[in-house]
Amino acid sequence: MDLAYDGTDFHGWAAQPGLRTVQGEIEAALAVLIRDPAGPPPRLTVGGRTDAGVHARGQVAHLDVDDALAGRVTARKLGGVLRRTAPDVVIHGIREVPAAFDARFGALTRRYEYRLRGASARRDPLTARFTAEVPRPLDLAAMREASEDLLGLQDFTTFCKAREGATAVRTLLRFDWREAEDGAFVATIEADAFCHSMVRALVGAVVAVGSERIDREQLVSLRDRRERTNRFTVMPAHGLSLEEIAYPPDDELEDRARRTRARRDPLA
Amino acid sequence: MDLAYDGTDFHGWAAQPGLRTVQGEIEAALAVLIRDPAGPPPRLTVGGRTDAGVHARGQVAHLDVDDALAGRVTARKLGGVLRRTAPDVVIHGIREVPAAFDARFGALTRRYEYRLRGASARRDPLTARFTAEVPRPLDLAAMREASEDLLGLQDFTTFCKAREGATAVRTLLRFDWREAEDGAFVATIEADAFCHSMVRALVGAVVAVGSERIDREQLVSLRDRRERTNRFTVMPAHGLSLEEIAYPPDDELEDRARRTRARRDPLA
Repeated sequence: MDLAYDGTDFHGWAAQPGLRTVQGEIEAALAVLIRDPAGPPPRLTVGGRTDAGVHARGQVAHLDVDDALAGRVTARKLGGVLRRTAPDVVIHGIREVPAAFDARFGALTRRYEYRLRGASARRDPLTARFTAEVPRPLDLAAMREASEDLLGLQDFTTFCKAREGATAVRTLLRFDWREAEDGAFVATIEADAFCHSMVRALVGAVVAVGSERIDREQLVSLRDRRERTNRFTVMPAHGLSLEEIAYPPDDELEDRARRTRARRDPLA
Repeated sequence: MDLAYDGTDFHGWAAQPGLRTVQGEIEAALAVLIRDPAGPPPRLTVGGRTDAGVHARGQVAHLDVDDALAGRVTARKLGGVLRRTAPDVVIHGIREVPAAFDARFGALTRRYEYRLRGASARRDPLTARFTAEVPRPLDLAAMREASEDLLGLQDFTTFCKAREGATAVRTLLRFDWREAEDGAFVATIEADAFCHSMVRALVGAVVAVGSERIDREQLVSLRDRRERTNRFTVMPAHGLSLEEIAYPPDDELEDRARRTRARRDPLA
């Protein structure tokens, strides 16, 4: 299932009792379609779990459905229900995948965008829902340089919320910046996987360089110290959007999921 | 006063008892700043009155303030109040203008943008608040040609809501299309002035050509017939944004306002 959502009015992806979440809304809509009171309730596995307020234009999720009932779950039907119950969710497409497909453990890479505007950029109320505001002028050239310093295979503990027994070694494949039509700066950030709050911490670190609160050398040394710091902040959720998750071809799915499970902690 | 707003949650610009409007919110905030219970309530004159749901990135309004109280009305102070009472309004700047300045009758031109996406474009929940959806595939080249046919000094009665005694003669200076980053088609439409619902009717007419419901010749003949038609629809409000209003230099203001009042009906 390929889908998108405006995260503003959701308490994140993951279903939570009594809270409006993306997973909760879609699973409720799926139950309406599947109409199988005897079977287990529909349960989605997501490619990139998003926090409260984070958006997605390229989210992926999978669902195990009994063969006899699979025909009831089409993008058209699910979109039809969601248009009434959750119009801030868009279903782009649904297709049958091999049993070995796993939206979470099968993913090769995730790509995010982070949109922000500095103090000298004109505020735009139309894009404010998905653009963070930094109350200081920003030096885009300095931010580009700082982002490059963070690329590659590294231990990103400095940028991760600590979790017992979890590794923060990741490969940062891409971290670059462009100016959008409305004058906002947009970061594209891609990695094999991200630990919790890592994208927003990486952007916060680069913004600290771009607003001259720390310099490039200090950022590199903070990274190498591998501990959380208050020298930069984790950026707000609403500037972040999950743009794309890449998967291997169908015939490599099983191998990929097995290797990911073996190699990384379950919080990836 | 240069300002912007997300029109989604407003019943348009014009103050109406019991309804949340842009004018109503700003005038209430101005009253807080001016603190002059003996004086008249603050009353704004706007450059481009917008309907319910229409946005503005480049709105202009003026206010008459007693010299002794003018210092209380700054963009910083007004923005400070509105951040709490109406965060969907942004004040870009406030400056003192010659007495002859009139935000409405002094304007030379107004520029709007209309954003829409056809059936083959990917839906984007983040830009959905300000992008209309057309449930048919659209031919952008045909839309560009049809837009050109409408340029110039013309009687736009076909595209105007009828008003007793009002002329619909306007000069359409610009009507062209670009593709935005998110795949939406964006029209830029500029004229000396617009009659009510004219921008949305013009876009609706061009969309009718782009979706092969009418052809270019039919559009021109509908225009020349100078009467309302059901061959195309008025597009929804939320795709429309007022982007810019142009005014003459300060020393030509008085002359301009006098000529506009004399020449055009009061509904311009």
